[in-house]
Amino acid sequence: MIDKKGSLLEKINSPDDLKKMNIDKLPEVCQDLRNFIIDELSVNPGHFGASLGVVELTVALHYVYNTPYDQLIWDVGHQAYGHKILTGRRGIFSSNRKYKGISGFPKMKESEYDAFGVGHASTSISAGLGMAVASRLKNEKDRKVIAVIGDGAMTGGMAFEALNNAGQSNSDLLVILNDNNMAIDPNVGGMNKYLLNISKSGTYNRFKKDVWEGLGKLDGFGKKARRILQKNQHALKNFLLKENNLFEALDFRYFGPIDGHDVIYLTEVLNDLKNIKGPKLLHVITQKGKGFKLAEQNQTKYHAPGVFDKETGEIFTCDCPIDKAPKFQNVFGETLVELAELNDKIVGITPAMPTGCSMNKLFEKMPGRAFDVGIAEQHAVTFSAGLAAQGMVPFCNIYSTFMQRAYDQIIHDVAIQKLPVIFCLDRGGLVGEDGPTHHGVFDIAYMRTIPNMIVSAPMDEIELRNLMYTAQLPENKLPFSIRYPRGCGIKPNWRNAFEKIEIGKGRKLSDGNDVALVTIGKAGIFAKRAVKSLENKGISAAHYDLRFVKPIDAEMLTEIFNNYKFIVTVEDGAIQGGFGSAVLEFMAENNFSATVKLLGIPDKFIEHGSPEDLYKECGIDVKGITNSVLDLLGTGKSVNQHSVLIGNHH
Amino acid sequence: MIDKKGSLLEKINSPDDLKKMNIDKLPEVCQDLRNFIIDELSVNPGHFGASLGVVELTVALHYVYNTPYDQLIWDVGHQAYGHKILTGRRGIFSSNRKYKGISGFPKMKESEYDAFGVGHASTSISAGLGMAVASRLKNEKDRKVIAVIGDGAMTGGMAFEALNNAGQSNSDLLVILNDNNMAIDPNVGGMNKYLLNISKSGTYNRFKKDVWEGLGKLDGFGKKARRILQKNQHALKNFLLKENNLFEALDFRYFGPIDGHDVIYLTEVLNDLKNIKGPKLLHVITQKGKGFKLAEQNQTKYHAPGVFDKETGEIFTCDCPIDKAPKFQNVFGETLVELAELNDKIVGITPAMPTGCSMNKLFEKMPGRAFDVGIAEQHAVTFSAGLAAQGMVPFCNIYSTFMQRAYDQIIHDVAIQKLPVIFCLDRGGLVGEDGPTHHGVFDIAYMRTIPNMIVSAPMDEIELRNLMYTAQLPENKLPFSIRYPRGCGIKPNWRNAFEKIEIGKGRKLSDGNDVALVTIGKAGIFAKRAVKSLENKGISAAHYDLRFVKPIDAEMLTEIFNNYKFIVTVEDGAIQGGFGSAVLEFMAENNFSATVKLLGIPDKFIEHGSPEDLYKECGIDVKGITNSVLDLLGTGKSVNQHSVLIGNHH
Repeated sequence: MIDKKGSLLEKINSPDDLKKMNIDKLPEVCQDLRNFIIDELSVNPGHFGASLGVVELTVALHYVYNTPYDQLIWDVGHQAYGHKILTGRRGIFSSNRKYKGISGFPKMKESEYDAFGVGHASTSISAGLGMAVASRLKNEKDRKVIAVIGDGAMTGGMAFEALNNAGQSNSDLLVILNDNNMAIDPNVGGMNKYLLNISKSGTYNRFKKDVWEGLGKLDGFGKKARRILQKNQHALKNFLLKENNLFEALDFRYFGPIDGHDVIYLTEVLNDLKNIKGPKLLHVITQKGKGFKLAEQNQTKYHAPGVFDKETGEIFTCDCPIDKAPKFQNVFGETLVELAELNDKIVGITPAMPTGCSMNKLFEKMPGRAFDVGIAEQHAVTFSAGLAAQGMVPFCNIYSTFMQRAYDQIIHDVAIQKLPVIFCLDRGGLVGEDGPTHHGVFDIAYMRTIPNMIVSAPMDEIELRNLMYTAQLPENKLPFSIRYPRGCGIKPNWRNAFEKIEIGKGRKLSDGNDVALVTIGKAGIFAKRAVKSLENKGISAAHYDLRFVKPIDAEMLTEIFNNYKFIVTVEDGAIQGGFGSAVLEFMAENNFSATVKLLGIPDKFIEHGSPEDLYKECGIDVKGITNSVLDLLGTGKSVNQHSVLIGNHH
Repeated sequence: MIDKKGSLLEKINSPDDLKKMNIDKLPEVCQDLRNFIIDELSVNPGHFGASLGVVELTVALHYVYNTPYDQLIWDVGHQAYGHKILTGRRGIFSSNRKYKGISGFPKMKESEYDAFGVGHASTSISAGLGMAVASRLKNEKDRKVIAVIGDGAMTGGMAFEALNNAGQSNSDLLVILNDNNMAIDPNVGGMNKYLLNISKSGTYNRFKKDVWEGLGKLDGFGKKARRILQKNQHALKNFLLKENNLFEALDFRYFGPIDGHDVIYLTEVLNDLKNIKGPKLLHVITQKGKGFKLAEQNQTKYHAPGVFDKETGEIFTCDCPIDKAPKFQNVFGETLVELAELNDKIVGITPAMPTGCSMNKLFEKMPGRAFDVGIAEQHAVTFSAGLAAQGMVPFCNIYSTFMQRAYDQIIHDVAIQKLPVIFCLDRGGLVGEDGPTHHGVFDIAYMRTIPNMIVSAPMDEIELRNLMYTAQLPENKLPFSIRYPRGCGIKPNWRNAFEKIEIGKGRKLSDGNDVALVTIGKAGIFAKRAVKSLENKGISAAHYDLRFVKPIDAEMLTEIFNNYKFIVTVEDGAIQGGFGSAVLEFMAENNFSATVKLLGIPDKFIEHGSPEDLYKECGIDVKGITNSVLDLLGTGKSVNQHSVLIGNHH
């Protein structure tokens, strides 16, 4: 993307350039920045609405604060495109989210302006408090720490834990609550209603002027800050607001709410707040998608719209054309509705992802049986456990990477108690452009170590449907995990009649003589193609799709170990402790002997890029599998020469 | 324990018996129950202070509610001894926490009165909401759900997630906030100060009568409930309380605070609340240890005092006599102080466990460099990450089982960003009497799958000291996990001069000819003794203590696989995906071949009991290891006959 000639943005290669400008130029900078984002995102897909919403806040923050010395942390981080563009990455912004390009999220090793790496929600206050305390211990009296967090992320429990701790810490931390009433879907819960009440209250708007003036005698607060200060000692104001202040209850000084699209006012307020010590929260009201009409009107659709026409707003859906296979998430969403029609005990639970996981279909059809609990994975799991304890059949859908948030709840509230919660882990495996914070590569390892847990992964859409069907049958009395990948499947005709799958039973897809490919989940698709590719090279490979990591199919593995000297396991997950490792445990326990090669995600964090690039990098695409088999068969014992050892990369 | 003749308690074999009593007998029942608990706990160690604090609440709840049809959930659950005694377990209460005896926590399979299994903090509101929603869906209009949660547990993020969701749910859920101003140590944070302000406010006490009377016109609330209702619309009351109500902000109806030791008043209030629909919170003030003077005065010491003299209160410390080895936790605590004196970047972080993990020693010596963040494991980890990002050297001490709460933060906020946070996982392995909710058996598996993570476990106190020393050296740039067991070590003279350990290097403890024992952590102690035991049987066993699960010692493993046909790995952790599994991965990757037997925690939840009983059950005590070696060497290939397969227990 070439800068528009004569734009102010063109002159800004770092926040220093921005600071040199006169304050009255800031609205024009904001307009330029907004245009740049619209231009870029219309051709290079990414997170759109969130970054448009914080254009003014971003400009104001870099104008006022001394970044990167002052530490600026963007919670989640998909709203930080403007921040990246202003901090020296305008010229390479078109590589955003591309393989070897810049990350879609702030990342410490990418820029000194990215004070903390982010991706998951609700981490910024904790990290910011740590930094503020470190500054205090290092006696850096002038360093400021700012955490910008959305109202969606504020519902995550760790944000509350951090507020609770920070309010008492007396550290110099500014939390900016970016309140746009949205997560990816509209925000939910008591906190959301509370914030809405504050900002929409007619009483508030009518009387606030008087209230602020009543507080005018406080010293050292600056004119702007004084005007927006809410101090809870003032009963009149409490009466006017008709509200209790949650943040003041936690000992934060609360300021706001203010208009987040008035850049000059924002700048003045931030300048005042710079001089106020202690933990404080500035409540800023913004609109997601601000400045692009269609994104303002349909915020969920334009959260990350893909390629679109920047004039008409038309979104060009390029994946999964109708005549081909559907997305796995849609198969989940539609199958859940079908099953819920058959089984009135079924309910659906999602932590703020009804659209992302396609549970919105259940919300439409049976709103009373679908629950969006907000960004709150821990609660989502234990809430599901409570439902299961009372005989309901909960389908709790959480992306693999976010399920990490609820690991203790899976063990403690579900598995120990043998409650038949059905975990659907969407986005299992490498997710592509979102990169290392979002790859769902640890779930096989972290799930299979848990007793009582059934751990499964379908290879295709029909297997997904049958596993979902099997999990909800009354005879299943155990927690049941089903992980499936992001993106499209392979079956255009996927709406089969349900079939029960015997728990712990795999399936043989092809017989062979030379080597056995043993796979789980989506990796089976690549392996199946590798079988063809190997056949062309004169190698006869058997292919077993085990379907279950646990209980693992002992009968099938016995057949495999009895018949094959060479075995290759393939999974779209971490090798360390993963599916292949389970096959090795079986081998050891049963005293079999074979040359087993484990393919999967190696022991490093995989960066962002297209899934194809990443599968290739990990050697689990068709070519990678084929080559591994050729290596294994060609060199036999010489594999021993390999010098790169598992777990020894430090 | 024999009931005192003529006691009322003797007549209560279920809540039905309690309900038959006249209300004026309840104080006597409470006295009997309190005496019973004191008598029992003085000889059978357990959680003491918490259960004494809720005697009146327990009696009132079972008197008023229709348990077990009504669902009563005790958060954490170590306060539920009175509940167990009143619900048919008085006669077997002396088996509390003993092998094959009743559990120290509510447990669904133990009693229908235990509506939800507990152990970790902050789960009760989520589970309760799930149950309340299930009741609504099943059209059970009369079923009540009550969650009793302490002020300590209320600081956990998931409690907030649940409140945020429940406030909007319109479900019939009563949350009872049992406010004793304590976790195990005194409670900390903004929430705590907030609650203290509510309950201690002189203004509040002076004016509350007027306020409540001002609210008298609300219909259908019952006399007692009306008297204690706080309704936020009433500006006068807000003024009197000088407080914002956090719970009302989340759309809970807030009642209280009331005296939790007045059983008759409690009964009346609960009766009124039964008839109020929707989510509501009753704030009850109690005293931990109530009724036992010394426990009231020293609440941390009497949280779980062990055996004590019920007349004098003298605590009989029976473990780790001075002339023997210290507890591992004390070695951690004292070593941390020593290191902090050498390295001024070191700070300590604990989530509400300063006494439990012995970080209290750092709090005493360097209060500015030790941080108790409350029951908030997620925040503790990311707060540590923020500190590390700014050059501090954080020792973040969290029990292995509680570290599960912060799994995502370890991956997302520490490992991806390569921040050198030092995780000290106390209580790694089987913890004994606290049972399955508290065993720290998954950490090796869940940690070793994370890239960039150094995963270590010392076999003894000196190794612990040296690992702690090594982890804080400036040349270490990676997250570093050190897990060690509950209880005493083996080195009376443990205070050695620090020695750096090369990262990823194990140590050979003994040479041998027939078999190699390869161990990690405390299991090495058992293996070392097993070597002697095998020697007596004419078998020569080598012993390697690998110290690091990751990076694993490739050189040492190469030596082992080159020299031994039979290898036994031993760990005090889950076999699935654990240390032995890492050894198998090494073997496969390097095309070695050997008969490898993995010893560790099998794929089931291990119940409570003495550590010795549990080690024996799992076959990792000296005898178990010895027998496994004998089996392996004696029968060779016949191991193949074993019909119990890993992961195939369903």
